[in-house]
Amino acid sequence: MRIEIICTGDEVLTGKIVNSNFSSMSQRLEDVGLAVRWGTTVGDDRESLLRAFQLAGERADAVIVNGGLGPTVDDLSQEVAAQAAGVPLVLDEAWLGRMEEFFRRRSRVMPPNNKKQAMLPAGAEVLDNPIGTACGFALDIGRARFFFTPGVPRELRRMLEEQVIPRLLARSGLQTAIFLKRFHSYGLGESHVDALLAGVEALVPDGSVKLGFRAHYPQLETKLTVRGADMDDIRRKLGPVEREVHKRLGNFILAEDDQTLEGVVLAELASRQASLSIAETFTGGLIAGRIAPLPEAERVFRRGVVARDLTELCAAVGLDGPALPAAITRETAEAVASAARRHTGSTHALAVLIDLDQGADRIDLGGTICLAIATEEHVASRRSRILGGREWVRLGAVELGLDCLRRHLQGLPVTERIDFEKT
Amino acid sequence: MRIEIICTGDEVLTGKIVNSNFSSMSQRLEDVGLAVRWGTTVGDDRESLLRAFQLAGERADAVIVNGGLGPTVDDLSQEVAAQAAGVPLVLDEAWLGRMEEFFRRRSRVMPPNNKKQAMLPAGAEVLDNPIGTACGFALDIGRARFFFTPGVPRELRRMLEEQVIPRLLARSGLQTAIFLKRFHSYGLGESHVDALLAGVEALVPDGSVKLGFRAHYPQLETKLTVRGADMDDIRRKLGPVEREVHKRLGNFILAEDDQTLEGVVLAELASRQASLSIAETFTGGLIAGRIAPLPEAERVFRRGVVARDLTELCAAVGLDGPALPAAITRETAEAVASAARRHTGSTHALAVLIDLDQGADRIDLGGTICLAIATEEHVASRRSRILGGREWVRLGAVELGLDCLRRHLQGLPVTERIDFEKT
Repeated sequence: MRIEIICTGDEVLTGKIVNSNFSSMSQRLEDVGLAVRWGTTVGDDRESLLRAFQLAGERADAVIVNGGLGPTVDDLSQEVAAQAAGVPLVLDEAWLGRMEEFFRRRSRVMPPNNKKQAMLPAGAEVLDNPIGTACGFALDIGRARFFFTPGVPRELRRMLEEQVIPRLLARSGLQTAIFLKRFHSYGLGESHVDALLAGVEALVPDGSVKLGFRAHYPQLETKLTVRGADMDDIRRKLGPVEREVHKRLGNFILAEDDQTLEGVVLAELASRQASLSIAETFTGGLIAGRIAPLPEAERVFRRGVVARDLTELCAAVGLDGPALPAAITRETAEAVASAARRHTGSTHALAVLIDLDQGADRIDLGGTICLAIATEEHVASRRSRILGGREWVRLGAVELGLDCLRRHLQGLPVTERIDFEKT
Repeated sequence: MRIEIICTGDEVLTGKIVNSNFSSMSQRLEDVGLAVRWGTTVGDDRESLLRAFQLAGERADAVIVNGGLGPTVDDLSQEVAAQAAGVPLVLDEAWLGRMEEFFRRRSRVMPPNNKKQAMLPAGAEVLDNPIGTACGFALDIGRARFFFTPGVPRELRRMLEEQVIPRLLARSGLQTAIFLKRFHSYGLGESHVDALLAGVEALVPDGSVKLGFRAHYPQLETKLTVRGADMDDIRRKLGPVEREVHKRLGNFILAEDDQTLEGVVLAELASRQASLSIAETFTGGLIAGRIAPLPEAERVFRRGVVARDLTELCAAVGLDGPALPAAITRETAEAVASAARRHTGSTHALAVLIDLDQGADRIDLGGTICLAIATEEHVASRRSRILGGREWVRLGAVELGLDCLRRHLQGLPVTERIDFEKT
């Protein structure tokens, strides 16, 4: 099935906003085994919209149109859709009622120009939008089925999931039960993971498991898309593949599905009624910034301290006197972590110290990272060197620190070599 | 002049990467007074590329093609461009020499498949790429001039600026001297600033000054695009408009052009040999994270402390005893800021305390922000309430804290009302 996407709106066309709706739609369709073949971006302009609808209607089987369903005069999607399909616009009384109810529940009177949102091309099929006033609809133009969706990202996501994808899958003749299993890792590059997982798809011989990746430095997402008759069928197929992925990626899997690294760390700490303090240098508070604002972090996150100067950092964790560390080493990180734990009375402390290369920012500027995790019983530490410029080193150090803490809490080695470090 | 953009590549089409090249190109063209009328996205697929080139060649005067100039087999731009133009591919000896030199300077041998990057459609005009091996080129297809550019963002930006835009401006017959003046503000919404600046364009009656905005919460960028015969002409036109913008937006302008809020704060502190400590709660280290990692921050940024619990935060700044604050108020923020300054011996301290609404995250969840700035002489403070969910409150509080510090350092009132706060 040939699918196209048309994104509309002056804000997208002029680059005022980055078109993340396109990538999120396209990615989600890939996840369920559907491929987008062509994307078009046009402004709020009658002539361009009409031409874009006509061209896509000649080429595609299905077209998703995004945007232009709002109440203002520059929202033209319904009107141009009707023109392209050669039908009049008619008032959808049911949707008008829904909108009036929508405003009533918010104790507001519906402005008269919102009525425009209930004017749909005659014969269009309504696509429900339970969280907004923009009414989605489906309609044939040329040889393609068109799906009109709202530009507001959360309304789009919901309509795509609940209304558009089921209809596309039904049309494509694909098995409609689809499951997306995701593994998040840190420390292995995409091509490395690809090589490690060679052949896992073949564990299900009928080709209903598809492997994919999404890299967002420093993390990598490994995706298994599984297709089946129903969820039982999917679980039966996924089981052995999932076990194999776990076996091959092992300690590098830091979270699955909607979990996050910081969420996993927080849950591990919370489950043992532990508390955490963090000492940072060049990461500047970004490690604390991942944990401290989480719901439930109040009970776990004890204190974060940040300083660019080692002496100042030592003072902030109550470390002074003649034995003051002078350089950033593993031993220094261990001393800072231990002191931070004692000073704040937390059960755990993480110290991430960075010795950044001198000079102007450049692609081969690096940083030496010494980190330590202290508990009452013992201290673990590692030294690592990352290249790639100030921001790259900083982001890498944040992830390395959090991931080593995760490993420590899960009883895994904190010193396992990662692909991003140079030695 | 009708301009189109064609973005190529499976990674963009499948949504694996968000297409920020499109928005950055489109935005930059807008800045120099050129408008993009149509965008197309296709994958690394011969048939789609050819069709996209043909369609754009029928509609447009100028077309920018992005991506597909690399050395691998799925990089098809040169080949399909030659096919669309009906010319053969020929080896550009000069570019081949440039590439060999590029590898030699990096002490590497050029892999044989890179030679493909020097194969250009016969008659194409070379567009220089001083920082990569992908050779840009220009060529007529249909009625349009096509400009082929590399997918690597920094190579694209440079080629767009130095090669493509001058050629587009020359073709458009527009005055070729262009200047973009930018003002960054926090606290006023886009429509508010638009209203405040009504009529400023008309101060230059020939229409050569254009006003535009780019909102990226919490900051707003106000842009003046000025067109002239040369830079002297531009400066003469810009002067009165710039002064008027300053007069109308006043204290809300926090930085200009490439300056950042954190950079302005750091420079103000550095210029008076001052030092800074920061105490944060729900912002979790993000305020420190804006300042601490900056070049030159080593000398200014003294210490940051983060805690979710007020008692813990007080302990971290040496504030204890019977007078311990029990609730988040302006007075508490003042006490924490003063204590942080004394405790760390810094000349300045910023405390940002947040009382977050209870319950699950939701669009009307709010936070009450109490912040204070302490110096040896006095303490300034403000209270503010922001709605919009956990992340919105958190980002707003980071900006509010930094901007109030900026205001304090510049001798401006820290309590001026902003559009985002509810009272």
